[in-house]
Amino acid sequence: MTLTSLQHALARFAAEREWEQFHTPKNLVMALAGESGELLEIFQWLAPQQSAQVMQDDERAVQVREEMADVLAYLLRLADVLDVDLEQALAEKIEKNRRKYPVHLARGNAAKYTQLGE
Amino acid sequence: MTLTSLQHALARFAAEREWEQFHTPKNLVMALAGESGELLEIFQWLAPQQSAQVMQDDERAVQVREEMADVLAYLLRLADVLDVDLEQALAEKIEKNRRKYPVHLARGNAAKYTQLGE
Amino acid sequence: MTLTSLQHALARFAAEREWEQFHTPKNLVMALAGESGELLEIFQWLAPQQSAQVMQDDERAVQVREEMADVLAYLLRLADVLDVDLEQALAEKIEKNRRKYPVHLARGNAAKYTQLGE
Amino acid sequence: MTLTSLQHALARFAAEREWEQFHTPKNLVMALAGESGELLEIFQWLAPQQSAQVMQDDERAVQVREEMADVLAYLLRLADVLDVDLEQALAEKIEKNRRKYPVHLARGNAAKYTQLGE
Repeated sequence: MTLTSLQHALARFAAEREWEQFHTPKNLVMALAGESGELLEIFQWLAPQQSAQVMQDDERAVQVREEMADVLAYLLRLADVLDVDLEQALAEKIEKNRRKYPVHLARGNAAKYTQLGE
Repeated sequence: MTLTSLQHALARFAAEREWEQFHTPKNLVMALAGESGELLEIFQWLAPQQSAQVMQDDERAVQVREEMADVLAYLLRLADVLDVDLEQALAEKIEKNRRKYPVHLARGNAAKYTQLGE
Repeated sequence: MTLTSLQHALARFAAEREWEQFHTPKNLVMALAGESGELLEIFQWLAPQQSAQVMQDDERAVQVREEMADVLAYLLRLADVLDVDLEQALAEKIEKNRRKYPVHLARGNAAKYTQLGE
Repeated sequence: MTLTSLQHALARFAAEREWEQFHTPKNLVMALAGESGELLEIFQWLAPQQSAQVMQDDERAVQVREEMADVLAYLLRLADVLDVDLEQALAEKIEKNRRKYPVHLARGNAAKYTQLGE
């Protein structure tokens, strides 16, 4: 399924259950952040290298996949109620970041762009 | 652009800057949750009805759109490094939720599914 | 117990279980944010007025209290490993905010201080 | 200052500015999680060992200290509006965790307690 069709499926899912009343932008942002918190809890005690192998544990892999789906679900619901074209928004953000983080300054450097080149 | 082509664009963006060393799943999950936190800060003092009109303020609308793009960007990077098919994961999650939240029990009810029908 | 004695109790608790190896600042910040996420999940679908009555439900009240304790626990562990005097840090922050948010400008206004008086 | 006197100072600070209308539990939980997100952003690209040396950079140290103060501030405001005795709540949580994580099972092991001893 495409992102748009998933967004429509989620909107229909909410409408059928009369959940639209709960899906204010404020509440959806809380739910999105709550699901990000679940991802944090999975990774919080893992060393970075361990985190890279997290999908080798079957039970853990299912959990990670489901939490990622939950984050996407709330992000798409938010895009729906705010009428944001997510793919377009991200394409534009990538172009903006291309200017903010020129390759010759940003290479191998995780510093925030305001500090680059200082 | 499709989700897959955005995911590839982001992977290329990171590779060109030699940022893959920073993009462990652990770090990406932190970045994802950090961006969700930015969304929280935009909405934290708004009444629910105000939150529904947030896009009518041009400056605020740009900010919301960019933070949403950032959340999607880190989620796609995470999907890339963990080799998760996000669209597939969400499609499966919707099917699972269809069983967990049957319409006749869930209608108008935001209770967590474990409490439904009690 | 005072904050300091709680901080020491938590340090001892971690040392007895040889958990100090997991309690890097990075990991503790993730755990702190993860627990904040649990609080978000409790409140995400509640209307603001409902959120003010959350402690009238006994089961919910226990849950809220425990999640708040967890947030404080990780904040105190973080203060311990970073050698931050939390009470002092907060006292200073209050003084700073007193200058940033003068009463005559901030009254009844949740705008961020940079926008006050504009 | 003690935790209680800081809690009172924060309540007075909010009352003087007529900010109590914004300080619903729901909004305070969002603000708390938003500040945790700021801490995440400071630590997200740091290796665990780097994170342990974060206070050696003066500018970074100020930032970490202030974000920690902000987390505590919102936690105390939440305790105030929900009438939760935070120190008591944490003391009880420590006792509960003493039973959940017995030293002989938990030593050197970050597994969640439900998995301990399996």
